[in-house]
Amino acid sequence: MKVDGKVMRTIWVEPDGWSVGIIDQTALPHRFATARLTSLDEVAHAIRAMLVRGAPLIGAAAAYGICLALRADASDEALDRAYALLLATRPTAINLKWALDEMMAAVRNRPRAERGAAAYRRAAEICDEDVAINIAIGRNGLPLIEAIAARKKAGERVNVLTHCNAGWLATVDVGTATAPIYLAHDNGLPVHVFADETRPRNQGASLTAWELGQHGVPHTVIADNTGGHLMQHGLVDLIIVGTDRVTRNGDVCNKIGTYLKALAARDNNVPFYVALPSPTIDFAVADGVAEIPIEQRGADEVATMTGRTVDGRIETVRIVPDGSAAANYAFDVTPARLVTGLITERGVIAATRASLASAFPERAGDRPTEHR
Amino acid sequence: MKVDGKVMRTIWVEPDGWSVGIIDQTALPHRFATARLTSLDEVAHAIRAMLVRGAPLIGAAAAYGICLALRADASDEALDRAYALLLATRPTAINLKWALDEMMAAVRNRPRAERGAAAYRRAAEICDEDVAINIAIGRNGLPLIEAIAARKKAGERVNVLTHCNAGWLATVDVGTATAPIYLAHDNGLPVHVFADETRPRNQGASLTAWELGQHGVPHTVIADNTGGHLMQHGLVDLIIVGTDRVTRNGDVCNKIGTYLKALAARDNNVPFYVALPSPTIDFAVADGVAEIPIEQRGADEVATMTGRTVDGRIETVRIVPDGSAAANYAFDVTPARLVTGLITERGVIAATRASLASAFPERAGDRPTEHR
Repeated sequence: MKVDGKVMRTIWVEPDGWSVGIIDQTALPHRFATARLTSLDEVAHAIRAMLVRGAPLIGAAAAYGICLALRADASDEALDRAYALLLATRPTAINLKWALDEMMAAVRNRPRAERGAAAYRRAAEICDEDVAINIAIGRNGLPLIEAIAARKKAGERVNVLTHCNAGWLATVDVGTATAPIYLAHDNGLPVHVFADETRPRNQGASLTAWELGQHGVPHTVIADNTGGHLMQHGLVDLIIVGTDRVTRNGDVCNKIGTYLKALAARDNNVPFYVALPSPTIDFAVADGVAEIPIEQRGADEVATMTGRTVDGRIETVRIVPDGSAAANYAFDVTPARLVTGLITERGVIAATRASLASAFPERAGDRPTEHR
Repeated sequence: MKVDGKVMRTIWVEPDGWSVGIIDQTALPHRFATARLTSLDEVAHAIRAMLVRGAPLIGAAAAYGICLALRADASDEALDRAYALLLATRPTAINLKWALDEMMAAVRNRPRAERGAAAYRRAAEICDEDVAINIAIGRNGLPLIEAIAARKKAGERVNVLTHCNAGWLATVDVGTATAPIYLAHDNGLPVHVFADETRPRNQGASLTAWELGQHGVPHTVIADNTGGHLMQHGLVDLIIVGTDRVTRNGDVCNKIGTYLKALAARDNNVPFYVALPSPTIDFAVADGVAEIPIEQRGADEVATMTGRTVDGRIETVRIVPDGSAAANYAFDVTPARLVTGLITERGVIAATRASLASAFPERAGDRPTEHR
């Protein structure tokens, strides 16, 4: 996608051929900044502190974390240490484990001298595959928007609501939930996005709104409380969200608050779709509510907000009284029964065990694996 | 209730016998400030700019607005102008119209010379009635908390979730949703409150958390997105919210986002109660979703946040990109079918036309009235 007219991805290998460039997403939307990562620890920090975030991008970043670890030390011990360190950075998005397992498979059985080059090759493939998958998600999701547009009167917009950021910033490029939206917009369909601000970290207001704005897609930021009212009044045609993990039964783990929007969608007969690349499916898990670990982050993310003052300074302000506790659950699980369909690289499928196994037979045999 | 140990109400007549004191709620939670209102225009501004807010308190403030208007000019024309000006300050809370109609009834048929004193008497009664009603709401709601406490093991807390602020700051004193909570706490029950922060104006984080803290009630501030997850995991025993208007069918208009919590409550079999004084019932309206006017406020309330910096300055920061639109619907409507019960001054009743008419027969005959 474009940033100020220049085509970019969210992660890349720098011209030196080994260090890793990223967009520092904690500076958006007020400042566009990139960062250069040169070690395993810097990658782990970038994931933990959310300089990079979004399930697919976390996977891609972790892949490069393995590359940088092997560059410093190509031993089995160093590899295992890097795997464990990166796996522990964030608990919920399964793409992290998927990418780490892919990297292990690519390097483990090679001589040490070949491991570094093999790692960089596989990491680059993971990135390119992510982009190809997202393009396919866009193509598969486009007819959903086209069908709504066909029912509208001339000049009426198709209103898509999304939660958090499942845009190109959450992936290597193109995005998941945004892929059909960008394609529809590029094809001239009058699409408009309601972007939930997505407290506490406000990825909707700071990232989704920013990237939609950069691409020229009309959008309106709303408080997370607003979607139900909009749906009651016919102002939302379609919901598309991303996900951090989909179970083999079709339960969808995504940013906290997604479940509330799915409930409102069902109550108002608004279609609720989830866009996902297949590495987000966790066939080892069945019941999302019971089994997926939900990350709890620091209370400060709830107790404070960061933004730009009128005179251009970036300030963090406290918004709860001194002495009040705050809790910060980062994700929730939307049961499969509330999901209209899953938009995948292999088509739009039902959120059911049978549909998932049939669309991805080569992965449906995955069984719970212990951390090696 | 107490502020730093001193007993206060949210609105009072100053020692001069005529000007009106209020707590300036826009300064909370970081600074406790009061303001003195000396004219109709100052009262209208205080309501519009939300120095006072909360349906019952808006009604009480409007009553004193009539007093101050009559003090300046006791003519019929001035009275009608004051009524119209105050009625237009905020559209959703029906207590505003109720209080204005009460004031009109109290002064309209009197000689001009008596109007001022009659107005101050009726305004003071409205305030005292509000307090008495809220005490009754507390008593009637208490058994709901006691019943849950009785099922808990020793040391386990009763977890009540509330949205926005329906505390004593939203009323003259005691609060509506908080009335049973304060009473339970004062009676020694181990009650803990999850306070939705309630974007965009954050009345939960800034007002509910503050007043619970002042009274020593354990509480945790959460992002508005969080309640569904908590309910899925059995972490909420009971929801109690306030309301700005209840229709004769039992539909509940309240701060935006309430509807989403009601949906999650139903999906997880969590009881969803609404606490209200009878002036909040609008017998002239049946279908809340179709008929209640929903206030749209400025986009800046969504695009910015105000809080305190580490070094103690109050700053407003912008949190959405330049160029992104924002929409700000202030209320939504929870259909009666999602409401477990209404906690009123006359008992806990079903959210149905029959129950409301039977509990408040003297008001059930209210019919739509044109603005006079």
